[in-house]
Amino acid sequence: MAELLRLYSYWRSSAAYRVRIGLNLKGLSYDLIPVHLVRDGGQQHHDEYAQLNPQHLVPTLMHGGRVMRQSLAILEYLDESWPERPLLPASARDRARVRALSQLVGSDIHPLNNLRVLRFFEEEWMVPAVERDAWVRHWIVEGFRAMETLLADDLVTGTYCHGEAPGMADACLVPQVYNARRFGVDMSAYPTIARIEQACLQLPAFRQASPEQQPDAPQAEPARA
Amino acid sequence: MAELLRLYSYWRSSAAYRVRIGLNLKGLSYDLIPVHLVRDGGQQHHDEYAQLNPQHLVPTLMHGGRVMRQSLAILEYLDESWPERPLLPASARDRARVRALSQLVGSDIHPLNNLRVLRFFEEEWMVPAVERDAWVRHWIVEGFRAMETLLADDLVTGTYCHGEAPGMADACLVPQVYNARRFGVDMSAYPTIARIEQACLQLPAFRQASPEQQPDAPQAEPARA
Repeated sequence: MAELLRLYSYWRSSAAYRVRIGLNLKGLSYDLIPVHLVRDGGQQHHDEYAQLNPQHLVPTLMHGGRVMRQSLAILEYLDESWPERPLLPASARDRARVRALSQLVGSDIHPLNNLRVLRFFEEEWMVPAVERDAWVRHWIVEGFRAMETLLADDLVTGTYCHGEAPGMADACLVPQVYNARRFGVDMSAYPTIARIEQACLQLPAFRQASPEQQPDAPQAEPARA
Repeated sequence: MAELLRLYSYWRSSAAYRVRIGLNLKGLSYDLIPVHLVRDGGQQHHDEYAQLNPQHLVPTLMHGGRVMRQSLAILEYLDESWPERPLLPASARDRARVRALSQLVGSDIHPLNNLRVLRFFEEEWMVPAVERDAWVRHWIVEGFRAMETLLADDLVTGTYCHGEAPGMADACLVPQVYNARRFGVDMSAYPTIARIEQACLQLPAFRQASPEQQPDAPQAEPARA
């Protein structure tokens, strides 16, 4: 397992953010290769990257010569390859719960709101920005309403989505809350989600994975002299 | 494991179709409870079902008293609970491949095209049917183009998506091809996908899971006397 880990990432991609969290939770070091989704016509469409990821999406993880795609598949790979500090609980029942929470975000919120979809609305249907933003909020609200119920009504929910150790569902939730705040979703309607997010953000694994901490994030405005 | 399996399903839901395939591949018998997504204002919104599935989506699987949601999480649960006739291969690397193919469909094609999204376009944005159908085809084509490349360029692809036994990726692919045909996608551009679909449809596990075989499917027109 001494082979190099290399993550193709974009600072604001929430799918890449999930994998950064997972790598950090495992304590794995990795090289980060930024793929700028906007600059140069979108570097994800350039031949070199498209060969690795024919979907033209981030993230892609390379482990030695192996190429892995799809953030949740990558998190499962990390868990199977480095079983310490597990991202999934032990029993089939609990694993199904954590995977379902993860997929609620990864299948039913995020794919509806990512860059390629918002671009389609802008370029093909000329949907105004205000309506695109309302679309984004609509699916976050739909998903978070269900997720809040699932988390709040279950004794297995602890400091984190599942008990007292952060895992896959938290790695999906925190980037989605980041997006929710960015698009102005009122998080006071989701107290359990907000509480878990705050607990996660206490941890260096989450903080160091955050968009603003990435080498490809735009530089903050310098403080005035 | 003698506890009853009960699947809440809708005949034409491709997420439910995946789970029906998985149950059949495992040789597990189950009770099927139809949830009609259109009739009665959508039975998925009725209190009794929404208690089981706060997302108001199908499928939901009950195993004894346990409630499982999200089709791919359910397929993983089946594989962990009944390891015979595995839906995933053995090595972490191969599992990552099959999960990525499954999520390509389950995250990046299907959620963009399901009933609640098409309804949003119709009811909120008044998008004409012809444009809604073009949207559906757009995301299928985007996804299938990548999937065809991933399948055609890999020696691990066999009769099925991964080698010589059908599994999770096939359970995702076949329902998506069903949708593609329904919306008029030209499958001749995806010869590997089409070949695998045909191989799957030779198997009773897939044929018996098909929408038209479901008890809640509309009756075919009777043949003329």
